Amino acid sequence: MSVIYQRVALIGLGLIAGSMALAMRRAGLAGEIVGYARTAATREKAAEIGFCDHVYDSIGAAVTGADLVVLCVPVGVMGALAAEIAPYLAKGATVSDVGSVKRAVIDAVGPHIPDGVHFIPAHPLAGTEKSGPTAGFAELFDGRWCLIVPDDGADAAAVAKIESLWQGMGSKTDRMEADHHDRVLAVTSHAPHLIAYTMVGVADDLARVTDAEVINYSAAGFRDFTRIAASDPTMWRDVFLNNKDATLEILGRFTEELFALQRAIRKGDGAHLHDYFTRTRAIRRGIIEAGQDTDVADFGRVHGENPGESTAEDK
Amino acid sequence: MSVIYQRVALIGLGLIAGSMALAMRRAGLAGEIVGYARTAATREKAAEIGFCDHVYDSIGAAVTGADLVVLCVPVGVMGALAAEIAPYLAKGATVSDVGSVKRAVIDAVGPHIPDGVHFIPAHPLAGTEKSGPTAGFAELFDGRWCLIVPDDGADAAAVAKIESLWQGMGSKTDRMEADHHDRVLAVTSHAPHLIAYTMVGVADDLARVTDAEVINYSAAGFRDFTRIAASDPTMWRDVFLNNKDATLEILGRFTEELFALQRAIRKGDGAHLHDYFTRTRAIRRGIIEAGQDTDVADFGRVHGENPGESTAEDK
Repeated sequence: MSVIYQRVALIGLGLIAGSMALAMRRAGLAGEIVGYARTAATREKAAEIGFCDHVYDSIGAAVTGADLVVLCVPVGVMGALAAEIAPYLAKGATVSDVGSVKRAVIDAVGPHIPDGVHFIPAHPLAGTEKSGPTAGFAELFDGRWCLIVPDDGADAAAVAKIESLWQGMGSKTDRMEADHHDRVLAVTSHAPHLIAYTMVGVADDLARVTDAEVINYSAAGFRDFTRIAASDPTMWRDVFLNNKDATLEILGRFTEELFALQRAIRKGDGAHLHDYFTRTRAIRRGIIEAGQDTDVADFGRVHGENPGESTAEDK
Repeated sequence: MSVIYQRVALIGLGLIAGSMALAMRRAGLAGEIVGYARTAATREKAAEIGFCDHVYDSIGAAVTGADLVVLCVPVGVMGALAAEIAPYLAKGATVSDVGSVKRAVIDAVGPHIPDGVHFIPAHPLAGTEKSGPTAGFAELFDGRWCLIVPDDGADAAAVAKIESLWQGMGSKTDRMEADHHDRVLAVTSHAPHLIAYTMVGVADDLARVTDAEVINYSAAGFRDFTRIAASDPTMWRDVFLNNKDATLEILGRFTEELFALQRAIRKGDGAHLHDYFTRTRAIRRGIIEAGQDTDVADFGRVHGENPGESTAEDK
């Protein structure tokens, strides 16, 4: 793989930026990778672990001379950051982002982009429940989709170039219109996250079942929800506030369906339940056949003596 | 480890029975392990793979001479099977089960147990989304809890003996009263399963987002739900029908909380969302520290080129 961008500036140094830096290095896609983060602690940690070639204390210094600037911050602050970087953007440079919501980001960032600078939003569908500068790893994007969301007037060469970057980092890429993206993600990500957060919150709040019981006996299903509900609170607050309509629409459908299943339980309608549960099995099969998850039982989790203990000391 | 039971009869030859057979063999806990399943195809498959020492076509023949009989079938058929095996049970033998619900099983099975036979219900909190005679593996119970649910009059020696068996198979054991068990599991397992089933069903049913989109872009959270929603439909139908009140109570709490979060989204109340999401993170930490899940990011899922493809041919 050859160098695609001469200088890539990553704004925000968390899980996604860290994985990008490692994946770009792995394939030699960038001449130089530089970074900036708002908080001094994050910058110091990033510099210490060699997150990228140089960590700047000033966002302007990071952006200056970059031919690609990627906003890797919560969706809610992207507009303000775009305003900050605008004066430093070079003609012909590309600004992109990795936000989980696209319409709100386009509305917030777009107006700040100077003439002659390309703005090509993107969203890699990859992540873990970890966050912060040490959370990244080079393989995060391998085999996962990255959705590119250019507007109608976008420069074809600039779009193709960022697609090559994502492909070079291991992703499969697809193009999607912003509003459609937000509807698809409301189903595949935003509503499931809110539901997982809700269930975990309910469990934490019960008087008749203790926290110790919830924690000890979580292996029967609940713990999968807790992984999702351990995701970064700021990032997710911003997702819900910025993809309000689509998320609320899916949640409306969800509660409607949940009420129907609750009624089936109350009435003892076993046939309704069995039919429903049989149908949902097929979707899992489709996801595995599409290469979007492992077919190994229980995600390939280690089953052995206290799998958590070996790493608990790391925290 | 030495032999605890001379002849163990497993009734129902699926994931749990298969894992028990392998775990008992690993530690040499049983003199002989025999099995019975209702359908001929399951019996043939089990015999072919050496599931246990002998697979019987007759439930009576399997049970005869056993000092431990374990019902490893969906909760809804346990009563009928108990009636079938009753004439063949030896004095001093123990009958147990592995059902996810305990009060309904006790009510259904208890009346059929002859005098002089011990009935000691149990529930191993372990499983995967796979089912059938080939799904079992010896490590399934390692480090996981098995809840033993004896009634007040249970024989202390018989209870201690089945506890030793589960410990020998790798489990940690605890004792719990039946109704409390059903309330705890409604939170840690039954409600989360119904919620996952519901979300997957909703996604399958959307007109504006295609199934291909749901499947391809599932990595952003949804696919964790599909694993849970791929669990055995018959088993889960029976769980909900037999732990109706506790499950409906938790689902009521869940919808109440979900409505509050939906309102926060609609009103743009970011502080409410952020506080809620911060609180739920702590529960994940508790589960990892208690050794009930791995701390490795994303469950330690393989991130690489199409992780599903390598095993898709096995199906």
